[in-house]
Amino acid sequence: MADIAERNEENMNVELICVGTELLLGSIVNTNAAYLAEKCAGLGLSCYFQTVVGDNEERLSQVLKTAMGRSDIVILSGGLGPTEDDLTKETAAKVCGRELKLHEPSRQAIEAFFAERGMTPTDNNWKQAVLPEGALVLVNHNGTAPGVILETESAKLILLPGPPGELQPMFEESVVPYLAALTSQVICSQTVKVCGIGESKAETMVKDLIDGQTNPTIATYAKTGEVHIRVTANAGDRKTAMKLIKPMVKELKNRFGNNIYTTEEDTTLEKAVADLALANGLTITCAESCTGGMLSARLVNVPGISEVYKTGVVTYANKAKRRLLGVKKSTLQKYGAVSEKTAEEMAKGAAVMFKADVAVAVTGIAGPEGGTADKPVGLVYIACHVKGKTTVREYRFSGNRYKIRESAVSAALALMRECILVYYSKVTFGKGE
Amino acid sequence: MADIAERNEENMNVELICVGTELLLGSIVNTNAAYLAEKCAGLGLSCYFQTVVGDNEERLSQVLKTAMGRSDIVILSGGLGPTEDDLTKETAAKVCGRELKLHEPSRQAIEAFFAERGMTPTDNNWKQAVLPEGALVLVNHNGTAPGVILETESAKLILLPGPPGELQPMFEESVVPYLAALTSQVICSQTVKVCGIGESKAETMVKDLIDGQTNPTIATYAKTGEVHIRVTANAGDRKTAMKLIKPMVKELKNRFGNNIYTTEEDTTLEKAVADLALANGLTITCAESCTGGMLSARLVNVPGISEVYKTGVVTYANKAKRRLLGVKKSTLQKYGAVSEKTAEEMAKGAAVMFKADVAVAVTGIAGPEGGTADKPVGLVYIACHVKGKTTVREYRFSGNRYKIRESAVSAALALMRECILVYYSKVTFGKGE
Repeated sequence: MADIAERNEENMNVELICVGTELLLGSIVNTNAAYLAEKCAGLGLSCYFQTVVGDNEERLSQVLKTAMGRSDIVILSGGLGPTEDDLTKETAAKVCGRELKLHEPSRQAIEAFFAERGMTPTDNNWKQAVLPEGALVLVNHNGTAPGVILETESAKLILLPGPPGELQPMFEESVVPYLAALTSQVICSQTVKVCGIGESKAETMVKDLIDGQTNPTIATYAKTGEVHIRVTANAGDRKTAMKLIKPMVKELKNRFGNNIYTTEEDTTLEKAVADLALANGLTITCAESCTGGMLSARLVNVPGISEVYKTGVVTYANKAKRRLLGVKKSTLQKYGAVSEKTAEEMAKGAAVMFKADVAVAVTGIAGPEGGTADKPVGLVYIACHVKGKTTVREYRFSGNRYKIRESAVSAALALMRECILVYYSKVTFGKGE
Repeated sequence: MADIAERNEENMNVELICVGTELLLGSIVNTNAAYLAEKCAGLGLSCYFQTVVGDNEERLSQVLKTAMGRSDIVILSGGLGPTEDDLTKETAAKVCGRELKLHEPSRQAIEAFFAERGMTPTDNNWKQAVLPEGALVLVNHNGTAPGVILETESAKLILLPGPPGELQPMFEESVVPYLAALTSQVICSQTVKVCGIGESKAETMVKDLIDGQTNPTIATYAKTGEVHIRVTANAGDRKTAMKLIKPMVKELKNRFGNNIYTTEEDTTLEKAVADLALANGLTITCAESCTGGMLSARLVNVPGISEVYKTGVVTYANKAKRRLLGVKKSTLQKYGAVSEKTAEEMAKGAAVMFKADVAVAVTGIAGPEGGTADKPVGLVYIACHVKGKTTVREYRFSGNRYKIRESAVSAALALMRECILVYYSKVTFGKGE
């Protein structure tokens, strides 16, 4: 992937510093960095560096000075707590040469926060109302640590509380408007989400567009069983940026056709399948062997799925495949549990037994044991039964047990989507499928 | 939490540099940093800085030089791919003043990797066999990018591929032994894994031990529905370190009793449940509503689960609860689908229908819609039926739809474990349960 430097030469830079020993110890994953980075990218800010450092004045001060020397905006998260260990605010104030003073509105907010909950603040809670002179104060509706913006000659510092439940609402409410006012350029992007096409093939299909890109730019992101293609443009206003994006998205639609399942940011593959079933008034059932419930669990991720998904089974044992799905004993004996024929009978059986319009079945060898020369680990059959017709596909996935099962789930969702489109919406699939 | 500096003054420092534009854009969460940080902490290495930087020679080189100036070991991940954008290896070689040369064994490994998969390497794949002179080469069994160790006077550089499926096995196989050999002090740790006790309660139960800690040290890590307590000691040799750990683990066993499900690093809660069922010759079935297959999927994570787990159902709709599990219509009408009584009948029904020794049922309100004042989002009932007895518990989880379902799955595993222990192994549970 091309580095973002070349793309956004003229934009403001932002740099992230996440403060916390839990991050340095690997006890928690740094979701704040991902959240802040994605939001900043969406605002058209270029981010070239992210740093994690502990609650240590010397090291934090060192990192902060470096960041202020090379970036226009520095966002710090964490270390605003009430204990002595928390020293982000104190260190930032020292680096910027500001005094700390009691901020009366923040003191009152802390008082109110505890009163509402019928609790009494401890002595150290008042520390959170002591803020650097001349700071812009960001109200925290979900905790006791106010956010702080310090504007200096070299950079703007934005200090946010560490808990995501406090950081995210504060960012949306107070930081987004602040940052938006700083930039004259607007950056917009749209993501074209593709399923049923491998990453390398998808990359080949857009290589000429990527090679020739200026504004908008294109980047591909491989997800398990999916490829996301993000088109990004910058302009003086949103309308102009979207005008630049539109023809590129159209070109991608020409190339990827029905393998595009959405161009909406918030739509997942399982949601696309659920929406498609809902639009056609269809119910879905799943009969899973090696995926063991993962496919159903993905569908049930979608809020309001109950209109579409009523019943599913995990038939891990052969006996279960026979009893619950009516797979023939002779089929299992002749072809084995991991076979085209078994997948077919599982899907057909599920459709009949659970009276569903769409039935999908997955059977495969997830490993690490159980593979043979003929049927290696990673071999998976997925069948989808709709309108009396069963489509069965063979897949060969790689990776560990979990990865193979995850890949099978994505492939099953893609196959379901394809079969519903082909049989209900009379859509044809191109060579990309 | 206290900064780690004070704890490990004499240990070697390690610093992490994760390379990737996807990280800077927030498209992916930096799980590599968490993985590497946790592993390094386990090896007794102190980590004071983590940096994320893009695929850009100038900035990567700047970050790398800073890291080499302040840390003994620098681990880089990402940017070892076959494309022109990938330049971690090239930049590291330049910073260290090393030439790049074709490494014949790596070339052969790439050839074999493609041959095994019946694929043809593209021209740029050979780039991955071009390595810095004098490097230690780490074999990649799961991809085409070999890892590289470069020893310089100021620091040791360890370059690893970015995909976690390649990075993690390479770290375990090659980097752990390398790092272990570097330190004269041996650091050993043992993790005591607890389920069925909340994080804050577990912390209170070990607070005196944490306050008084020197060697061994204790740290608690909250996972969904579990708490892991890691006891770490350092000494001149492994035997002495383990001797220091032993009495502390014994003390934790006294305090947490049967809520400890394992002290083995690789044992997950689902594996503990599977092992317990296997040891007692029991079969397990799951009847899931709000979790929608997640519980079965967790159990099916365990390789070789087929001895224990044969059948499961996802009965999302009321009709499915009635048809597949025999839940009474009157029960659903009188108490609702999310009730103690429904959970009980689901578990009993599953045990009978699928002839399992242990049947667990989950029904709840995962949200975001569907909550009422009486039955708010997060309310979940879990029932476990064993030996003709059904235990039902009420839970109130918080978080989003996914988090609530994930918490329910962990609670169901903990309850299954408890019921098997109580009814089959005649074990009693203390006040901690």
